[in-house]
Amino acid sequence: MKPITQKEHSFLDTVVKEIFPQDTSYREQATAHLEQLTMPHWALGDLMDLAVDLAGMTRSLKPPVERKTVVVMVGDHGVTEEGVSKYPSEVTAQMVYNFVAGGAGINALAKQAGAKVEVVDMGTAADLDDLVSKGVIRSKKIAFGTNNIAKGPAMSRTHAVLAVEAGIEVAYALADQVDIFATGDMGIGNTTPSTAIAAVLTGSSVRDLTGRGTGLDDGELERKIKIIEKILEVNHPDKDDALDVLAKVGGFEIGGIAGLILGAAARRKPVVVDGFISTAGALIAQGIEPFTRDYIICAHRSMEPGHRAMQEKLGKKPLLDLNLRLGEGTGAALSLNLVEASRAILTEVATFADAGVTGTPE
Amino acid sequence: MKPITQKEHSFLDTVVKEIFPQDTSYREQATAHLEQLTMPHWALGDLMDLAVDLAGMTRSLKPPVERKTVVVMVGDHGVTEEGVSKYPSEVTAQMVYNFVAGGAGINALAKQAGAKVEVVDMGTAADLDDLVSKGVIRSKKIAFGTNNIAKGPAMSRTHAVLAVEAGIEVAYALADQVDIFATGDMGIGNTTPSTAIAAVLTGSSVRDLTGRGTGLDDGELERKIKIIEKILEVNHPDKDDALDVLAKVGGFEIGGIAGLILGAAARRKPVVVDGFISTAGALIAQGIEPFTRDYIICAHRSMEPGHRAMQEKLGKKPLLDLNLRLGEGTGAALSLNLVEASRAILTEVATFADAGVTGTPE
Repeated sequence: MKPITQKEHSFLDTVVKEIFPQDTSYREQATAHLEQLTMPHWALGDLMDLAVDLAGMTRSLKPPVERKTVVVMVGDHGVTEEGVSKYPSEVTAQMVYNFVAGGAGINALAKQAGAKVEVVDMGTAADLDDLVSKGVIRSKKIAFGTNNIAKGPAMSRTHAVLAVEAGIEVAYALADQVDIFATGDMGIGNTTPSTAIAAVLTGSSVRDLTGRGTGLDDGELERKIKIIEKILEVNHPDKDDALDVLAKVGGFEIGGIAGLILGAAARRKPVVVDGFISTAGALIAQGIEPFTRDYIICAHRSMEPGHRAMQEKLGKKPLLDLNLRLGEGTGAALSLNLVEASRAILTEVATFADAGVTGTPE
Repeated sequence: MKPITQKEHSFLDTVVKEIFPQDTSYREQATAHLEQLTMPHWALGDLMDLAVDLAGMTRSLKPPVERKTVVVMVGDHGVTEEGVSKYPSEVTAQMVYNFVAGGAGINALAKQAGAKVEVVDMGTAADLDDLVSKGVIRSKKIAFGTNNIAKGPAMSRTHAVLAVEAGIEVAYALADQVDIFATGDMGIGNTTPSTAIAAVLTGSSVRDLTGRGTGLDDGELERKIKIIEKILEVNHPDKDDALDVLAKVGGFEIGGIAGLILGAAARRKPVVVDGFISTAGALIAQGIEPFTRDYIICAHRSMEPGHRAMQEKLGKKPLLDLNLRLGEGTGAALSLNLVEASRAILTEVATFADAGVTGTPE
């Protein structure tokens, strides 16, 4: 377990100590049961692998996954002043109002999956107090957006720790009413810090990792690559210190996502990680405590080219590959039905013996 | 439109005449709406493509997909006497009892997706009259299994037409209570006829197409390849005559699946095509009437190596790729939630104008 440098943050330190690997005994029991189901051996492939994971995560052969919540972490990014996104920062707050009104992609897809949506202001540039006071979003606001990482660090190390701890607090506050978490993000410009995080933590080149985000053309893409290379030169984050990476080139919502994953893992709850930005958060969480990966389900492979390398760093194969590039938790919401299906395979299908079906000869 | 050779089969001929392409006007309206949603352009990728298809299939901007039925077509195969499967033919009927008892993979996954399961005996070797008289399965039995296609044709051309017509009848009988169909199959040995169909209709080699079915080892796989090559030599099916292909190297359940797809297309209902065997049925349907592909949604890419070439022949990209190799309609059931999600994107997400969100500049 990687020690937290700032010992005064005893909360994060304590949480990390509560994260253990999946339970091998439950994994083995689930595997043995799945091998007896009335179908050719492991014929439901990746969903049977996932069923074993669910048993190992939850320490149950009837892993609870019914109560589903997508947590959308929101933050703004000073680096937008470099022109890295086609949309202005104001859209971040506008989209929060859209989430609250139920009009965004995540609202439609979470509803289809029977999941709740929780929106958390981690660091929006706008004042969202009206929504906080109405109780329709949570505030864990660290600041009104990060600093421009093309010029210096995104945030102080203290703010990085606070962002991660805020994410853990959200997970803990919800844990009693949630069986499975899903991550989501909103933050104009956040593919830039996510790509920077990916470059540091996967070791891949910025050029190989950088994509068109919300729709950059060739010239804009080339400019974005140059900016991210500059970001890494200016900040030189320490790849062996995930909190340094978050502080130097991250974002508040990315820290919140990392914390949510840590909190879910500490409570032994599966956490479905959405797309490119959420996976950057997962890499931060993995850097803080590698066993978090035992609780992660990768929802989908996004269109961002760097996503593959990030998921390989987590050692995870995604469930879906649908050319999604929205974020908000939409890919995670889409995969929740597959998680429920995995549970159903484990709990509802008859064995050869039960059903009187002739099994495979030897 | 390809004429049906046997003009006495006026039912099939009539149905084929009722199959038209997707409606371009509804496709265009759906596209225009989706481009205005509060997200980067086409950010939900393949699910937006699917939403356009649903609008074009159903002639509606609120395409109905709520009432879902998986039709599991069942048949036996004389070719099992060549040792092409690890399981004996008796398992086909045993699995029908398992379906009826609710213990199979498809039962669990259809339930998760909120879909009904209809089991149709197209040509099981066993007598299933007890289940038919209880009303828990439908009988469209053409015969007690096909002939051994390693020695001669699977069935007469008349039986091939009857099998397809039986599938259409099932679609028509259910159409008033079903918004979206999903195909499924059960039939020990049926990867062998499906591979033979794929070889004829895609033009790929048997060696490239043949897989391990329910779990063959290297020697058994080599033997299966030799048998399928022999099947094609013995029967020389006419690649330009899908009914000839079905009669020579097909199966009753495969004909039923082809008919279900034709019937769904004639009634302008989307039909989710499951795995390797169902896709063989889809190729037969496409051979009878190419516009059927306008109503097909390919559920998943199975582990059988030939599946890719078959889906490319249909011109379709599958929604899922989860290393499934079960059949029964399980992959189709898993994808039904994604179809519902596509509809939700089309009908529930706010536009930039509605939500007061700043759109992309220009």
